[in-house]
Amino acid sequence: MSGNGIGLLFRLTTFGESHGPAIGGVVEGCPAGLPLEEADLQRDLDRRRPGQSRFTTARREPDRVRILSGVFEGVTTGTPIGLLIENTDQRSGDYREIKDRFRPGHADWVYQKKYGIRDYRGGGRASARETAVRVAAGAIAKKLLAQTGVRIAGALIAMGEVTIDRANWRWEEVECNPFFTPDAAAVPRFEALMEKIRAAGDSVGALLEVTATGVPVGLGEPVFDRLDADLAKALMSINAVKGVEIGSGMAVACGQGSLMADEMVPDASQPDGVAFLSNHAGGILGGISTGQPIVARLAVKPTSSIAIPKRSVTPDNTACVVITRGRHDPCVGIRAVPVAEAMMALTLADHWLRFRSRPGAWPAGTSGCTSQG
Amino acid sequence: MSGNGIGLLFRLTTFGESHGPAIGGVVEGCPAGLPLEEADLQRDLDRRRPGQSRFTTARREPDRVRILSGVFEGVTTGTPIGLLIENTDQRSGDYREIKDRFRPGHADWVYQKKYGIRDYRGGGRASARETAVRVAAGAIAKKLLAQTGVRIAGALIAMGEVTIDRANWRWEEVECNPFFTPDAAAVPRFEALMEKIRAAGDSVGALLEVTATGVPVGLGEPVFDRLDADLAKALMSINAVKGVEIGSGMAVACGQGSLMADEMVPDASQPDGVAFLSNHAGGILGGISTGQPIVARLAVKPTSSIAIPKRSVTPDNTACVVITRGRHDPCVGIRAVPVAEAMMALTLADHWLRFRSRPGAWPAGTSGCTSQG
Amino acid sequence: MSGNGIGLLFRLTTFGESHGPAIGGVVEGCPAGLPLEEADLQRDLDRRRPGQSRFTTARREPDRVRILSGVFEGVTTGTPIGLLIENTDQRSGDYREIKDRFRPGHADWVYQKKYGIRDYRGGGRASARETAVRVAAGAIAKKLLAQTGVRIAGALIAMGEVTIDRANWRWEEVECNPFFTPDAAAVPRFEALMEKIRAAGDSVGALLEVTATGVPVGLGEPVFDRLDADLAKALMSINAVKGVEIGSGMAVACGQGSLMADEMVPDASQPDGVAFLSNHAGGILGGISTGQPIVARLAVKPTSSIAIPKRSVTPDNTACVVITRGRHDPCVGIRAVPVAEAMMALTLADHWLRFRSRPGAWPAGTSGCTSQG
Amino acid sequence: MSGNGIGLLFRLTTFGESHGPAIGGVVEGCPAGLPLEEADLQRDLDRRRPGQSRFTTARREPDRVRILSGVFEGVTTGTPIGLLIENTDQRSGDYREIKDRFRPGHADWVYQKKYGIRDYRGGGRASARETAVRVAAGAIAKKLLAQTGVRIAGALIAMGEVTIDRANWRWEEVECNPFFTPDAAAVPRFEALMEKIRAAGDSVGALLEVTATGVPVGLGEPVFDRLDADLAKALMSINAVKGVEIGSGMAVACGQGSLMADEMVPDASQPDGVAFLSNHAGGILGGISTGQPIVARLAVKPTSSIAIPKRSVTPDNTACVVITRGRHDPCVGIRAVPVAEAMMALTLADHWLRFRSRPGAWPAGTSGCTSQG
Repeated sequence: MSGNGIGLLFRLTTFGESHGPAIGGVVEGCPAGLPLEEADLQRDLDRRRPGQSRFTTARREPDRVRILSGVFEGVTTGTPIGLLIENTDQRSGDYREIKDRFRPGHADWVYQKKYGIRDYRGGGRASARETAVRVAAGAIAKKLLAQTGVRIAGALIAMGEVTIDRANWRWEEVECNPFFTPDAAAVPRFEALMEKIRAAGDSVGALLEVTATGVPVGLGEPVFDRLDADLAKALMSINAVKGVEIGSGMAVACGQGSLMADEMVPDASQPDGVAFLSNHAGGILGGISTGQPIVARLAVKPTSSIAIPKRSVTPDNTACVVITRGRHDPCVGIRAVPVAEAMMALTLADHWLRFRSRPGAWPAGTSGCTSQG
Repeated sequence: MSGNGIGLLFRLTTFGESHGPAIGGVVEGCPAGLPLEEADLQRDLDRRRPGQSRFTTARREPDRVRILSGVFEGVTTGTPIGLLIENTDQRSGDYREIKDRFRPGHADWVYQKKYGIRDYRGGGRASARETAVRVAAGAIAKKLLAQTGVRIAGALIAMGEVTIDRANWRWEEVECNPFFTPDAAAVPRFEALMEKIRAAGDSVGALLEVTATGVPVGLGEPVFDRLDADLAKALMSINAVKGVEIGSGMAVACGQGSLMADEMVPDASQPDGVAFLSNHAGGILGGISTGQPIVARLAVKPTSSIAIPKRSVTPDNTACVVITRGRHDPCVGIRAVPVAEAMMALTLADHWLRFRSRPGAWPAGTSGCTSQG
Repeated sequence: MSGNGIGLLFRLTTFGESHGPAIGGVVEGCPAGLPLEEADLQRDLDRRRPGQSRFTTARREPDRVRILSGVFEGVTTGTPIGLLIENTDQRSGDYREIKDRFRPGHADWVYQKKYGIRDYRGGGRASARETAVRVAAGAIAKKLLAQTGVRIAGALIAMGEVTIDRANWRWEEVECNPFFTPDAAAVPRFEALMEKIRAAGDSVGALLEVTATGVPVGLGEPVFDRLDADLAKALMSINAVKGVEIGSGMAVACGQGSLMADEMVPDASQPDGVAFLSNHAGGILGGISTGQPIVARLAVKPTSSIAIPKRSVTPDNTACVVITRGRHDPCVGIRAVPVAEAMMALTLADHWLRFRSRPGAWPAGTSGCTSQG
Repeated sequence: MSGNGIGLLFRLTTFGESHGPAIGGVVEGCPAGLPLEEADLQRDLDRRRPGQSRFTTARREPDRVRILSGVFEGVTTGTPIGLLIENTDQRSGDYREIKDRFRPGHADWVYQKKYGIRDYRGGGRASARETAVRVAAGAIAKKLLAQTGVRIAGALIAMGEVTIDRANWRWEEVECNPFFTPDAAAVPRFEALMEKIRAAGDSVGALLEVTATGVPVGLGEPVFDRLDADLAKALMSINAVKGVEIGSGMAVACGQGSLMADEMVPDASQPDGVAFLSNHAGGILGGISTGQPIVARLAVKPTSSIAIPKRSVTPDNTACVVITRGRHDPCVGIRAVPVAEAMMALTLADHWLRFRSRPGAWPAGTSGCTSQG
């Protein structure tokens, strides 16, 4: 299994299974001189951490991250940042019964077929626990981007059939409810849905939106490493995500060109002297950022870990029934919000470094050949 | 601009602007011994080629591809395959007026801002013409995959508000109408829509579906290079695509786990002895192929090249109005079908080689250390 | 600082400074099913470990490696293998004085200039300590390669002006003396040299040779990822290495074609039915392994950490004199032997997986499309 | 065969066989705004071109390079630069006899074993002809680097037993003799050697030196992507190269630390206020450029294409004798000089872009977040 790294210049490589000794990763490419401490990472880890409300799994994961390298006297040195999170609350016993029957909708069966072996405890490498390292690394990317004026924020905008009213959108609200939703009015409806789903032993999907503001014009490398293409990969790589949209997304299929082109007008108040009158493009044209907010949405499927019996097979291909009784989130999409933010941050940090590497119109602005020390 | 290559082991690197001397590319990683000739590539190029029906641009592009290397006596040698398509029908005059006004919804403005210069003729590198090389390379990937029993097919399933009836789906129909649609009954409705859109000087979006059958269990590299993540990147990298779905896609957000997990039952007729009772996963679980058909959908936005006036700016940030009068497809999504097939083929060929590189349960099946000659 | 990873399919990414909390790394691509435990790694780590003879630094580094993931019930799972070595014997005080004066011949000055900050304790990231992770990862690569019949061994063949007599070469001797030298008769001469160098407070360079036997024909990807090119990079990336040779190496410059071409004769006892009559090529032709032993040599410079005063500058560019009094190896080349073995093992493991990924003459031998489980 | 590309941000991908329709490549990452025309590339191609003196092969290769993309109105646009060189003088007949007997010392046999097929005409992909594309691409890198004050120059410093006197070194002399040697006094001795070797139907090796001046402090990415490691790979990837040295090279093995550390003294005339008193390091410490000249040497083996009979085998492993009668260089090392320059230029251009991508001490000097247009 290669494929555990993402990013060209700002790069994260991760390791770890949910019930092994630890999970962790290496962040390469973070420039020197950025003030950084473990608390910067812990903040987002705590947002992602389970057991914080009655709507997420009761599994307690302190998720304390340690920075093992790359920071000296409170400041990054330009060397790789080693991250480590020890696994502590490993009730392996809970998972013994799934050793011998594949959970439908999980990666159990394909891992067994691909590798001929799997760490069956809690999903192993395929567990959502793996995303904790993404969140820790994403917090570094966020702090880096913040220095340049880029701000990333995510929100849950629908769960099952319940959707928010965008007219109520208030970013401050996102951190004030257990759903990361910006619409306070939707909270009771989400609560009611969760109670119903939990009572049924079922699970439910979710729709998330992640945005980045303050992104300058020019990030993104056509043709294949377009900013939207790299975002699509980064977001689709999150467990349980089955769809990714940029800007108007899937809805463009039913649209007309006369209604969907984002018109431009002169506007001296803008950094580039131009204002867009709409943002169907979601901040990206031809794979390159336009300076407008970058807007992406992702659909997270309902977890297959449910208390409702499902048909499956055993390793010797005998029919069986699977009921998952462990401590599971009825809606894994909720905790995917900080993960989605992290993946957008990692992608933008990488493209920001790539963007920096090239001079504009040559040779104007060429200052790269003088020492940076 | 790096970012012109895609794939790790089976890799395509492209170059070329729509109105320069030529476009082309290099295909690396194609195994030796595959029978290959230019006609194999031309077939898909002809499917993509404009000017074939009254519903695509009248621009004539013979799009004759030359194989410059990597094939000897009709068979691939394992060395890189150089591809070249000369640009012939370059009516540069058509584009002179767009030199001095940025077309809204196009990449003109961001290219100018990012690079400080752009080949303004016909979109330059951002032109859909660039996708011809993808199609040529994808044809090689398709032929390689066909040897292993993998078959890739794409179709248009909606255009604007007109959608097909999936009950009418017949793959054979796809090559029999100018829309690449599998529902013969939808053809007149698509025609009517096109006539209306064209008369209005407008354009319309489209929804495509691409599938791969015969894919074995085990393709895909968790965690970041998941098969679905790499597919999302590959499909989102196509011009004008704003959304990508795998399996049930965005709809999983409103689903419940009890309805969306794909149950498994023993089935001796299947290669792995297991049959899935549904395919919400679109053939991919945990980033790894399940052996079921791989199903992806993509939304293509309506082109911004329309005859309806739109507000824009000039290079010196003066307000202006843009009307695009050139020869343009009212629905670029139609010709995106072979492009989407190509991107799926390239992605699967790459993962098929990656899949091959690792032994199963060790040391069983280890035959890699004997000479392959 | 990106650039902390090496390898395409079998890939090592490392992190860590000599006096931070820990060093470590991630090994990706190791196939599933390989029996592996920490003791497999510890063996080579102990060979590299300082403080084992009076000819290496007295610094005590227990160098206990922990495997944090990727191994389940004693067998690799195909997921990334996280490695961790805590730093324990960190007498930071020893290094306080080098904070304010750059050691000539070290990376101190360039790190300060490049990053504007450096962890000055013991060389930080540029310390030879970083190579411990390479050795741990290399041990995994060695074990993988051993399953296919490949064996890697290194030796010290010269130190300063003292060279071995190749007629005395006995591989068994290598592990029986503190110099990793295969010529028992040279040991007293190396000892005498070391005593003299140490007494003078000086240091001395070394010449190493690393070989791999049992490598099949066909490893290596022309044109740029040639096996010899990748070996050259891997070996030159070791601290203090200034030259790399393959086969007859630099000496080919003075040779004649009639004497240096390796003639071939039929030989039914060989795997490919052919025997070479010499090995000037060092087992690699056109970037591809020939089946003969792969032979590389590398020159390790004398460490600049010496007790002899040297002119240098302070951070504010004032002249100063530097004398390094810490615990240092008079010949760092000795302990570079297991590091060189590790780098060759990592390179071969990577190319072995790349080699496996491609079928031979197509479609013969195509078995990749059946499930590997 | 993947592995046909080199470089991360400034990247060259090549294709082509010596006797196919054409060779060519794609250069990615060249910044926009660089004035560039075909004549810039042709100059170095002409230096490499055979048939220019009686000491190189009589094969006539006009080697006219075409730029197919990435340049608009005489200036680079930031998009990939497609390069094409048609093969014209293909006397395939010359090579018919080598179809059925493997030339010892060539890549024929390993290609046949690895791929099961080979384009046997003139070495196919393994022909030195492949290096023409490197030279063309290297000329772009050189022009880019020249804008920043970096100048690259190569020279032949030994051939067989004949070596130059470094006291006679004059760079201007290099372009005035057919050997690219900087010592005018050595020219008659090289001529005499060549006459002797040619008369004997033999060939001879060569030692080259390549330098780069004007390189700022700070290029190079520790730990694995060190500037010296990447140079070693780039130079070792050239056909027939068997050894690479940086600075004092292999000789460091016999040196003492007290003599080999490059002392530093304050010197206000230098860009960084520091002068080095020697350059054993060859301009690179810890993998990072020091600001001193970068100095590399490479040994090129004598070609195996000689008129002296050598034992070999046929494809069915029958013993045979090979005599190469074609038009071949008695010393391929001569024409390797522009190739070595090209590989150093490509490596430095790539690291120069990587260097640019990271801010120095954060947040000072952060100007990357403003538009570059």
